[in-house]
Amino acid sequence: MKTVSVCGVYPPIPTPFEESGALALGRLAENLSKWNETPLAGYVVLGSNGESVHIKEEERARIIAAARKAIPSDKLLIVGTGAHSTEVATQRTKAAANLGAEVALVLTPHYYKAQMTAEALRRHYLALADASTIPLLLYQVPRFTGLELPVDTIIELAQHPNIVGIKDSAGNLGRLGEMIRRAPSGFSVLAGSGSFFYPALTLGAAGGVLAVANLLPEECCQIYRGLQEGRYAEGRELQLKIIAVNDAVTTRFGVPGLKAALDLLGYYGGPPRSPLAYPSPQEVAEIQKVLHEAVSTPTAY
Amino acid sequence: MKTVSVCGVYPPIPTPFEESGALALGRLAENLSKWNETPLAGYVVLGSNGESVHIKEEERARIIAAARKAIPSDKLLIVGTGAHSTEVATQRTKAAANLGAEVALVLTPHYYKAQMTAEALRRHYLALADASTIPLLLYQVPRFTGLELPVDTIIELAQHPNIVGIKDSAGNLGRLGEMIRRAPSGFSVLAGSGSFFYPALTLGAAGGVLAVANLLPEECCQIYRGLQEGRYAEGRELQLKIIAVNDAVTTRFGVPGLKAALDLLGYYGGPPRSPLAYPSPQEVAEIQKVLHEAVSTPTAY
Amino acid sequence: MKTVSVCGVYPPIPTPFEESGALALGRLAENLSKWNETPLAGYVVLGSNGESVHIKEEERARIIAAARKAIPSDKLLIVGTGAHSTEVATQRTKAAANLGAEVALVLTPHYYKAQMTAEALRRHYLALADASTIPLLLYQVPRFTGLELPVDTIIELAQHPNIVGIKDSAGNLGRLGEMIRRAPSGFSVLAGSGSFFYPALTLGAAGGVLAVANLLPEECCQIYRGLQEGRYAEGRELQLKIIAVNDAVTTRFGVPGLKAALDLLGYYGGPPRSPLAYPSPQEVAEIQKVLHEAVSTPTAY
Amino acid sequence: MKTVSVCGVYPPIPTPFEESGALALGRLAENLSKWNETPLAGYVVLGSNGESVHIKEEERARIIAAARKAIPSDKLLIVGTGAHSTEVATQRTKAAANLGAEVALVLTPHYYKAQMTAEALRRHYLALADASTIPLLLYQVPRFTGLELPVDTIIELAQHPNIVGIKDSAGNLGRLGEMIRRAPSGFSVLAGSGSFFYPALTLGAAGGVLAVANLLPEECCQIYRGLQEGRYAEGRELQLKIIAVNDAVTTRFGVPGLKAALDLLGYYGGPPRSPLAYPSPQEVAEIQKVLHEAVSTPTAY
Repeated sequence: MKTVSVCGVYPPIPTPFEESGALALGRLAENLSKWNETPLAGYVVLGSNGESVHIKEEERARIIAAARKAIPSDKLLIVGTGAHSTEVATQRTKAAANLGAEVALVLTPHYYKAQMTAEALRRHYLALADASTIPLLLYQVPRFTGLELPVDTIIELAQHPNIVGIKDSAGNLGRLGEMIRRAPSGFSVLAGSGSFFYPALTLGAAGGVLAVANLLPEECCQIYRGLQEGRYAEGRELQLKIIAVNDAVTTRFGVPGLKAALDLLGYYGGPPRSPLAYPSPQEVAEIQKVLHEAVSTPTAY
Repeated sequence: MKTVSVCGVYPPIPTPFEESGALALGRLAENLSKWNETPLAGYVVLGSNGESVHIKEEERARIIAAARKAIPSDKLLIVGTGAHSTEVATQRTKAAANLGAEVALVLTPHYYKAQMTAEALRRHYLALADASTIPLLLYQVPRFTGLELPVDTIIELAQHPNIVGIKDSAGNLGRLGEMIRRAPSGFSVLAGSGSFFYPALTLGAAGGVLAVANLLPEECCQIYRGLQEGRYAEGRELQLKIIAVNDAVTTRFGVPGLKAALDLLGYYGGPPRSPLAYPSPQEVAEIQKVLHEAVSTPTAY
Repeated sequence: MKTVSVCGVYPPIPTPFEESGALALGRLAENLSKWNETPLAGYVVLGSNGESVHIKEEERARIIAAARKAIPSDKLLIVGTGAHSTEVATQRTKAAANLGAEVALVLTPHYYKAQMTAEALRRHYLALADASTIPLLLYQVPRFTGLELPVDTIIELAQHPNIVGIKDSAGNLGRLGEMIRRAPSGFSVLAGSGSFFYPALTLGAAGGVLAVANLLPEECCQIYRGLQEGRYAEGRELQLKIIAVNDAVTTRFGVPGLKAALDLLGYYGGPPRSPLAYPSPQEVAEIQKVLHEAVSTPTAY
Repeated sequence: MKTVSVCGVYPPIPTPFEESGALALGRLAENLSKWNETPLAGYVVLGSNGESVHIKEEERARIIAAARKAIPSDKLLIVGTGAHSTEVATQRTKAAANLGAEVALVLTPHYYKAQMTAEALRRHYLALADASTIPLLLYQVPRFTGLELPVDTIIELAQHPNIVGIKDSAGNLGRLGEMIRRAPSGFSVLAGSGSFFYPALTLGAAGGVLAVANLLPEECCQIYRGLQEGRYAEGRELQLKIIAVNDAVTTRFGVPGLKAALDLLGYYGGPPRSPLAYPSPQEVAEIQKVLHEAVSTPTAY
């Protein structure tokens, strides 16, 4: 039995910075107050889109606390707590729990790739799951890490009562289907990218952690709710609509693209931290065009 | 307007050999006569699963002719005619057409990967499409070739009246969705692997060319027909059933695994050509176990 | 004991075509007559730079015969005979031997990568080595094939009296050093690219099969002879000279670049076969600049 | 003009831990006192082999200070200070300089790979070079990061007076040769792995940062000195000797293998931090065998 059921749509929110690079926590609260009015099931803070690798250890607590304050109790607060060492991942997870995180999203360690065997990854996650007071989501994103968890290892970890799901950004629908087929009941397989959100849902995914949900939260939630109510054709149409936006704010322009798109839509995006740079005016125009096309395309529903 | 609409389920059939390595064309006819009793929409002959790279030029005509004879007119005969050189691909396509092939499946050239730019691939396919009397399906399978067609190139090629679709074995559902969204009406996007067949159909794919359809033709066709009639839950359940079988006969054991599975199911599989080798008894037992689980799992439908 | 010792410098020569795409065998003879006046140890015909994947089976014999006629007996004729199937590789090797080839260069089969285990590759090469009347060179080029022979397999194959060496285009000097350290005496490890020719020689490589040796045969041979006589500083200086040319005619512009460079230097390059295309005028100008710099840089020797 | 010339052999030293995982700084001093008696030119602290990704920010200063105290003034102290964000890399570099580091080794940022364009990498390194009071070495290791600096970018950065060299663990000798040919005088290209140390030196590399130099410092230094004095044959023989050891403590068993090998040789290796784990008894036996073979092989010199 899992203690928490993670389902629905979660945006991995960007961390807002001032032009100086300092944290802009007021902006974080403003963004959240807008998203709070949508049917999003919750938020991922300090994930890849939150530039977790650019955040200093002492800034983590401030960001989590600010998010906690701005997130109502009916929305789930998931915090990214992964680290290359088991000890640091454990410390981050405990600290996040103390600050009100309800679930920890734990990226695979991946620097010493050749040594990240199934055994090493199992050791890492089991130690963490035993030590943590809050449940864990596994998190794999080979585009950034060059590493994918073996399906057998995922299934083995899924037996642990404190491991409640996986954010899978690999996008291999065959393996994702195997996870769904073999995982115990209550283990949530979440699509880690908008590019395959609807197809993953049709296979039985429990929801998604989607960068594009920062920009099009209503559409993403509509896909999710629609499928639960059997509206497949609607889901398909919306999926085709969000794909191009998703592509622009992930593979093509990355986190800087996501921040520029937020600025265009009335949220606060602001600058990423160096060496990332805000998109050029020409790139912003491209992003605007993609957003405009998606938003203005009439849907039958 | 496309001259042919390629939709439904097509197995890429293996080429049967005697123990000596000689063509076993009688066995080919026997297998086809069994598959002909299923709702398969047609067949792919001389594709990757047909060991096309192991077939001598002079054997091609004999195989195509034998297949043509054994395939009724209500099932489509698709023949793999790709080659590294445009001229050879053109010759093979013309020869196949003369022997009764209705559609040519054209693998990307891929040896000189660094030179296979969008421009080179466009040149290759447009020359072929102009020269061919039968319509073409593009075919990409990065697992074997290390190469993927850019989506923009696919969309551009899709405008040609003689290019009627693509067999996409890459399995990136985001890009597959983009193809479906942007391609002109009548252009068929076909799932190139059973691992993502149902998710691709939910996005609007026109069908699939699936190794697993050699083994479980009824199930694959049921997924396809079911979706057309809105039976999503059934499709999902069947998809989860075929995934493990698909995995065994593609990534894990490859063409030799597919041949062993055919032998286990009462078809003729027989030996692959060297350096491929028939699976060991232990591997055959594993394949049998996977098949047994899939076939014996009761489905609600 | 190996029957043939393969050492020194060998250019993998391009196959000349008319503008129509037809074989230009007179041009082949003319090029060879020029190269024959240099200290090159021999030639590789029908290798990757010979566009072997663009050559029809019936053209192979004509090319080999033309080369044989134009190559004097004191220079070695090596012919590329690799194929995906063991049987075809064997037939090509026998046919080449009958036409006067002295050594066969055998590319790794590589289409079904997941099944190309150490065992499959061993089976392929041992069957071929047993069947062939002429000695074999192994040939690996992961840039084109996505596949590398395990060092243990190379060492095992090196025990066969009819396997006399390897053309290694992978360029991992650690593994190349291991081959040299562990292979039996008489087994020739040949650098497969000019980019690491001199470093490979300093480690004990027996020579090189170098695209750049088509263009700068004297310089390549001088590196080789110089090292035998202990002139390391000269070798180093010449190596730095050939690197940029090598890069232009391999990774950057590939076989079309090599052909354009030959045209610029008074040899016959001519068009590659489609989908490869002759470099644009701007690219030819770049190649000319690189050649000019290399040729005009004074060397201290 | 570069302010510091980095040449010779540098081991990237492991960080010793107690069984509890706590820093074992006394052990660090003991190891250094042994290495200090060899001709090593200096040390790299907090590099990949120092498990930098497992070290907490507050532990960094303690490790650097302990190393500084144990390293005599005639040996160079190089400290790894790379980070994903430019600001953190800058802070780490300044802190290291304050603690007595003489050179900073700066790993490429690499998490957001698609956004790590030549422009982003240039921005990162130039900002750091301007801000740092000590000179920088670039550091690329695609085996861990999945990312390689373009040669053009390296050459551009090499013009900065405060960027004095590169540790190149990519091992592409063609690109390494290009760096040597094109970089301004005084810019040190250092081999980043023992697998290609001697070949790199023959091309003109200024030295090496070699994991294997922790274990075989005399042999590595002998290769370096020997080449300066023209003893190529000796260098070659020693290189073939260190390759197998190098392979065992890098690709095969990684940092845990290096630590086990140190334990076997009378240094303190000790446990790595989780999820890395000490090699199994069987693996230790394999490492011992490899060490024994290398140490017991008589060399002619």
